[in-house]
Amino acid sequence: MVDLTQIMDDEVFMAFASYATIILSKMMLMSATTAFYRMTRKVFANPEDCVTFGKGENAKKYLRTDDRVERVRRAHLNDLENIVPFLGIGLLYSLSGPDLSTAILHFRLFVGARIYHTISYLTPLPQPNRALSFFIGYGVTLSMAYRLLKNKLYL
Amino acid sequence: MVDLTQIMDDEVFMAFASYATIILSKMMLMSATTAFYRMTRKVFANPEDCVTFGKGENAKKYLRTDDRVERVRRAHLNDLENIVPFLGIGLLYSLSGPDLSTAILHFRLFVGARIYHTISYLTPLPQPNRALSFFIGYGVTLSMAYRLLKNKLYL
Amino acid sequence: MVDLTQIMDDEVFMAFASYATIILSKMMLMSATTAFYRMTRKVFANPEDCVTFGKGENAKKYLRTDDRVERVRRAHLNDLENIVPFLGIGLLYSLSGPDLSTAILHFRLFVGARIYHTISYLTPLPQPNRALSFFIGYGVTLSMAYRLLKNKLYL
Repeated sequence: MVDLTQIMDDEVFMAFASYATIILSKMMLMSATTAFYRMTRKVFANPEDCVTFGKGENAKKYLRTDDRVERVRRAHLNDLENIVPFLGIGLLYSLSGPDLSTAILHFRLFVGARIYHTISYLTPLPQPNRALSFFIGYGVTLSMAYRLLKNKLYL
Repeated sequence: MVDLTQIMDDEVFMAFASYATIILSKMMLMSATTAFYRMTRKVFANPEDCVTFGKGENAKKYLRTDDRVERVRRAHLNDLENIVPFLGIGLLYSLSGPDLSTAILHFRLFVGARIYHTISYLTPLPQPNRALSFFIGYGVTLSMAYRLLKNKLYL
Repeated sequence: MVDLTQIMDDEVFMAFASYATIILSKMMLMSATTAFYRMTRKVFANPEDCVTFGKGENAKKYLRTDDRVERVRRAHLNDLENIVPFLGIGLLYSLSGPDLSTAILHFRLFVGARIYHTISYLTPLPQPNRALSFFIGYGVTLSMAYRLLKNKLYL
């Protein structure tokens, strides 16, 4: 029987696991941020959520949208759209035997860029802060995809 | 050459594979549910989808939103936002050599909480049913992230 | 210490890695397509994005929705909803020791169906082009889930 804990002795894989866990935890913070703004601003999407703030028609006025909440939701969706490819491609890239320092450079750039993307989106900072951080994360993922397909293409 | 099928002999990994497959299949049911409500309620997002119900202006009246459909779509997006971190963190956690019974407790709680979340969202059940099931799933994923980073942090 | 690069010597796993990377890269193209339509049609979701097109009230007129942009966004979200289960279930299925030709058939059908789904959505082609490609991808993922649970269920 194979000892799975050995997989985690691989330094590239351990680094990927750490950075992936950090960026996923950051993404999960977006849910908490949405919930925070929904509660403090009393902005809800479901009738059953605003029962505590009033009954009948009085409660229905809280079924609305809010710029702040929509902004967090857009940032969250953008995270999903970019972190899913990073997870999939990054995992396979980590298993394809890359150079340790190259791999860590990729992971650090991606995680840094996505954290800066969230800061740019939620503050909001003027463009091109957000656009730039988006493209750095995007480029890092494509660079890993390119190296993976160049070395290991099997169709 | 490594025999990959050995990885699946690891009990924690086999358990993760089973629970992950079950919760992903549940998430896929949300697409079918959306399609079901769109067809039975004649509520569509694309002009080409309602051609069979009429031509020209007569078809365009089906391009609308519907509370029931939007509710399923919100539940689906909430699934995506929570199941993606569970998949990524859970996979890496499974490979980090956790105790079998602790790991299975995490997986069961998460899968149970997410199934109850869907039931709460679609029925809908009064709050705090949905909020509670959300936070259980959220907490389980953060607990796995914490154990992973505590044991295997490599930056 | 285990040599992780051996995992990539497994033909099924190499095939999965290639097809997963291709379909994730395709999904990433959706972000670029959205950005392209937003720029060329001057349709933005955030005030800070349209500063270059005018100041104050003059800029706010670009905060709007557009059929073309919304179509790409729906296609992107549909990709996410379907590619996430494929990634999770496909990865675990690849590790469960399937027959090479069966596995490759699954991967090829899924990737082909999802590429055709995007073409059908963005052109748009008349139904049932999009519906059919959706269901092929859906069925392929469920078929892998079924084989996985049949062989390796551990609850």
